Amino acid sequence: MIIIKTMMLGLIRGRMMSVMAGRALTALPRSKARLLTSHQSQHLHSASSSCQKCELTSKRYNVQRGKFSAVSEHDLKFFQELLGSHRTVLGEEELEGHNTDWLGTVRGASSVLLKPKTTEEVSAILSYCDQHQLAVCPQGGNTGLVGGSVPVFDEVIVSTALMNQVESVDTWSGVVTCQAGCILEALDQHVAEYGLMIPLDLGAKGSCHIGGNVSTNAGGLRLLRYGSLHGSVLGVEAVLASGEVVNCLSAMKKDNTGYDLKHLFIGSEGTLGLVTKVAINCPPRPAAVSLAFLGLQSFDNVLKTFKAAKDQLGEILSSCEFIDQSSMECVEGNLKIKSPLDEYPYYMLLETSGSNGDHDEEKLNNFLESTLGSGLVSDGTVATEPSKMANIWALRERIAEALILDGYTYKYDISLPLPHFYKLVEDMREHLGSNVVRCCGYGHVGDGNLHLNFTSRQYEKEILERIEPAVYEWTSQVNGSISAEHGLGFKKRNYIHYSKSLGAINLMKQMKKLMDPNGILNPYKVLPD
Amino acid sequence: MIIIKTMMLGLIRGRMMSVMAGRALTALPRSKARLLTSHQSQHLHSASSSCQKCELTSKRYNVQRGKFSAVSEHDLKFFQELLGSHRTVLGEEELEGHNTDWLGTVRGASSVLLKPKTTEEVSAILSYCDQHQLAVCPQGGNTGLVGGSVPVFDEVIVSTALMNQVESVDTWSGVVTCQAGCILEALDQHVAEYGLMIPLDLGAKGSCHIGGNVSTNAGGLRLLRYGSLHGSVLGVEAVLASGEVVNCLSAMKKDNTGYDLKHLFIGSEGTLGLVTKVAINCPPRPAAVSLAFLGLQSFDNVLKTFKAAKDQLGEILSSCEFIDQSSMECVEGNLKIKSPLDEYPYYMLLETSGSNGDHDEEKLNNFLESTLGSGLVSDGTVATEPSKMANIWALRERIAEALILDGYTYKYDISLPLPHFYKLVEDMREHLGSNVVRCCGYGHVGDGNLHLNFTSRQYEKEILERIEPAVYEWTSQVNGSISAEHGLGFKKRNYIHYSKSLGAINLMKQMKKLMDPNGILNPYKVLPD
Repeated sequence: MIIIKTMMLGLIRGRMMSVMAGRALTALPRSKARLLTSHQSQHLHSASSSCQKCELTSKRYNVQRGKFSAVSEHDLKFFQELLGSHRTVLGEEELEGHNTDWLGTVRGASSVLLKPKTTEEVSAILSYCDQHQLAVCPQGGNTGLVGGSVPVFDEVIVSTALMNQVESVDTWSGVVTCQAGCILEALDQHVAEYGLMIPLDLGAKGSCHIGGNVSTNAGGLRLLRYGSLHGSVLGVEAVLASGEVVNCLSAMKKDNTGYDLKHLFIGSEGTLGLVTKVAINCPPRPAAVSLAFLGLQSFDNVLKTFKAAKDQLGEILSSCEFIDQSSMECVEGNLKIKSPLDEYPYYMLLETSGSNGDHDEEKLNNFLESTLGSGLVSDGTVATEPSKMANIWALRERIAEALILDGYTYKYDISLPLPHFYKLVEDMREHLGSNVVRCCGYGHVGDGNLHLNFTSRQYEKEILERIEPAVYEWTSQVNGSISAEHGLGFKKRNYIHYSKSLGAINLMKQMKKLMDPNGILNPYKVLPD
Repeated sequence: MIIIKTMMLGLIRGRMMSVMAGRALTALPRSKARLLTSHQSQHLHSASSSCQKCELTSKRYNVQRGKFSAVSEHDLKFFQELLGSHRTVLGEEELEGHNTDWLGTVRGASSVLLKPKTTEEVSAILSYCDQHQLAVCPQGGNTGLVGGSVPVFDEVIVSTALMNQVESVDTWSGVVTCQAGCILEALDQHVAEYGLMIPLDLGAKGSCHIGGNVSTNAGGLRLLRYGSLHGSVLGVEAVLASGEVVNCLSAMKKDNTGYDLKHLFIGSEGTLGLVTKVAINCPPRPAAVSLAFLGLQSFDNVLKTFKAAKDQLGEILSSCEFIDQSSMECVEGNLKIKSPLDEYPYYMLLETSGSNGDHDEEKLNNFLESTLGSGLVSDGTVATEPSKMANIWALRERIAEALILDGYTYKYDISLPLPHFYKLVEDMREHLGSNVVRCCGYGHVGDGNLHLNFTSRQYEKEILERIEPAVYEWTSQVNGSISAEHGLGFKKRNYIHYSKSLGAINLMKQMKKLMDPNGILNPYKVLPD
C-alpha cells in the first residue's frame, strides 16, 4: 500500500480545484443584466411590511400547538453561550420580519432567532433543541409563498443569514460548493466571474438563500432549459434533528454509491433536515441572450407557439413564460409600467440564450417570421439590450408584487397537462364571478406551471372557501399537481391528498418519524395533520 | 361543487393527451442511426455465454445465505396459478442466462423465474414472497456490471421482460409513460415517431430495460447534455416488498407536493422497491448530429479541449468521450476494427446535436480550427453520415466487449475531479506492472467518469487483492466516487464507506429496514454486510 500513500501526498500537493475558497458573499451586489430583480425584491419587502400585523396564523387557521417546550431562560443561556448575544436575537420588533411572510398572510410568535455561522453550530443547536423538545423553524431569505419559512407558534427560528461562504468553484467541471445562506443572485454573480451561471433564476433572487431554494426545490424561470434542482444539485450537507451531520456533499456529476440521500433534503422544506451546504452544477454562462415578447389572440395559439419554439429554437430556448390580459392589466395598472405591445388576450415571453449571438438571432428571426406569418402570433418585439430585456421581464416578474396592491392575494401554483392549462383560469373566473377583484393566470407555460391568483380588498374566509378545495379538485381530476414549485408549507399541507396517494403519504410520515422522531423540525408543515 | 363536476365531465371528454396508449414494444427494432448498438449487444451476449459456467458467487466470494425460505412445491403452485406455467420458468438450463451476468463474473442458483405482465401481478408476487420469507431478485435486461441483477443464492427472479407497454406519449410536453420492461432502444425509437428522444443512451441500449436504467440510475453517453435520471424521470410507480404499490407516476415537470419519493427508487437497485412504471421527460430529437474524433498528445490537452468545447460548442455539445491508447489497442486488436486516425496516446469523441445543421457545422468547424491551430488537438476527423458516425462510436462503445476477449475483466467505474482523472490510470498501471494483461482507461471525461479496466487471462484472486482496495483508497483521497454510474450491486457494496460517511450508511440501513423490514428485496446488494 506504500505506493498509494506516496501517490496521495503528490495528489494533495497538486490539488488546484478550489480557485476561490472561503470567500463570503456578504454584500448583495446589484444585478448587471436585470436590475429589476433586486429592485423587485425591495418592492416586495416594502409591500409586505404594511401587512406585517396580519392575524396570528394559529388563530386564523385554528391550529393546535404541538407538545413542545417553551423557550426558557436556561435555553437562552445555552444559545447565548454558543453564539454570543449578537447572534441570539430577541425582542418582538427585531423578530417581526422573521415571524411574518412577505405576502403578509401568515404570522408566528417566535421569541428567539439564532444565527449560526457553521455546520457545527447548527448541529449543536438542533441537538440541544431535540433533547429539550424545542420546536425549530429553519429560515433562509423568507421569500416562500406557502407559509413554510415562518413559525406557526413560538418555534426557535434558525436563520442561515450568516452562512454565506463560498467554499470552492471547480472551473474544470463547473461546480460551486457553498454554504446554505448564500443569496441566489450574489452566488450567480460570483460564478459569473468564472464564465458560469447558477441554473436557477426566480423573482426573489435578490433575497432568497440557495439553501432555501434547495430545501423547497425551487423551480423558476429556466427550469425548461436546465431542469429541476434534483438534477442540478450534486451534493447536500444537512443536519438531522438529532444534530447528526449527514454529509452527501459530493461535487461529482455521477455518484451511484448507495441510496442518494441528498434527494431527501431537496424539497422537504426543512422537515427532514436543515441544509447547511450545497454543491451545484453550473452550466457555461451564455454569450448571447435575446428576449421576444409576443401578443396572441387565443390560448390555442399560445400552445402552438410553444411547440413551434421547441422545434425551431430547440437547444437555445431558455424560458417560455405566459401572461394573461388580466395579469397584464394588474401590473400596468398597479405599478404604472407599460407594455411595449397593444392589448392582447395572451402574451408570451420567449428567451433564448446560447454561445453564438448571430446563430441565435437567425433562429429567432426565422421563428418569428414563421409564427407571425402563419398568424399564430399577432404581434411581437425582440430585445437584446440588457435594460430593454429587464423592462420586459419586469412585466412578468412584478405581477406578484402588483397583485399584493389589490389588497389580499389568494395564490395557487398548479401543474397541469398543457391542453387544460388555461381552462382552469376560465372555469374559476366563472365560478367566482364578482366575489373577487381579480382572477388571473400567468406563469411557466413551458413547464405546464400555472400561477393562478385571486385578489380581494382584504382577506375573506368566504372567498377562500369558495376557492378551496374547488381548485384542488379540478386539478386532481386532470392529474395535475396542487403545488408545482411553491411547496406545501403550512398553507397547503392538508390538501396533499389531491396530488398524492394515501400509500405515498403514509410512507412520507414514516420517513419523517424515522428522521425526526420528536418532530421538532419545522412542525405544522408539509405533512397533513 | 356542482360546477366542478360539470367541468370535469367536459375535461374528461376532451382528453387528448395519450396519442398512443397500450402499445407494446415487443420486437426489438434495429437502430437506424447506430446499428452497432444492437450489434454490440449481440456480441456482448455471445461473449458472455462462453463464461456462463463461472464459479458460483456464493463460493467465490464466500457469502453467507440469509435466513430466507427455500422455494417449495407449494410456492410454485401459487406462482403457477397466478401467472400460468409458461410465465413461471423452471429448469437449470432455462435459467442459466438469468443466473449469470453477461460479464461472466457472478453466478447465482435460482430455480424459478417469474414473468409478470402487470403491476398487480408484481404486487401479488412480492406480497406472497414477503409473507413466506422468500428472497427476490428483480431483473431487467441483465446488463449490469456489478452483479446487481442476478441472484446470489436461490432468490426468486422477477423479470420485467413482459412488462413492455407504452402507456402514453404527451406530445405537447414531451413525456412518455411506460412499463418498466420497455427496452431502451425500442422506447427511443417509439418516441422518435413524435420527434422526441429518450435523454439516455448507453452501449447496452439494445437489451437493457428502462426500469433497470431507472433502478440503477444509469448514466451513459449523454448525461453531459441531458443530466441524470434524477432530473429526467418525472414519475415512478414501484411496488414495495409488502406488495403495496407506491404511485408517484406524475407526468408533470414540476410537482412539489410532499417528499419526492420517486428518488428513493432511482438508483437503489431494486432494494427498496420494484419499479413497475416510469414517466420520462423527452427532449426534442435533434435535427442534426455530428461527431468529431480527435487524436491528442497529452491528457492536459484532453482537459483543455473539453473546456474549449464547453465554451465554443456550448448548448450543442451532447457527448464528450475519452479513449486512451491501451483501450484503442484492445478494440483494434481484439475486434479487428480500425481507427480512422494514426496512433495517439489519447483520443476524444465530441458529439454535437442541435436544431440547425448549418449553425452546428459552423460552430464545430470554428472549434476544430482553433484547437488544431493552437496544437491542443493533433489530428481529427468529422462524421455526419450515420454509418460513419456508427463506425466511430463503435471504437468507444465496443471497448467493454473487446476487453472480455482478453479473458477476465476487473471493471472499475470511478468519478474523479478532472485534474486527477488520468493520474489514477497511470498510478495503477505502475502499481500492477506485468501482473495484468492490460490496464486501460476510457469513459465519459465530460462528466468526470473514468472506466478503469484491468484484464488477465483468467480470474485471479491475487490480482483482485492488488487492485482492491488500492483503487478505492486512491479515489477516496481525492473525494471521488467509487461507483459513478454502475452502482454497488453485489460486488462493490462492502466498499461503500470509501464514498459515503458512516452516518449516511446508517441512514440508508434504516431506510431499508423501514421499507423492506424482512429484507427480501435483492438481498446481498447495495448495503454493506
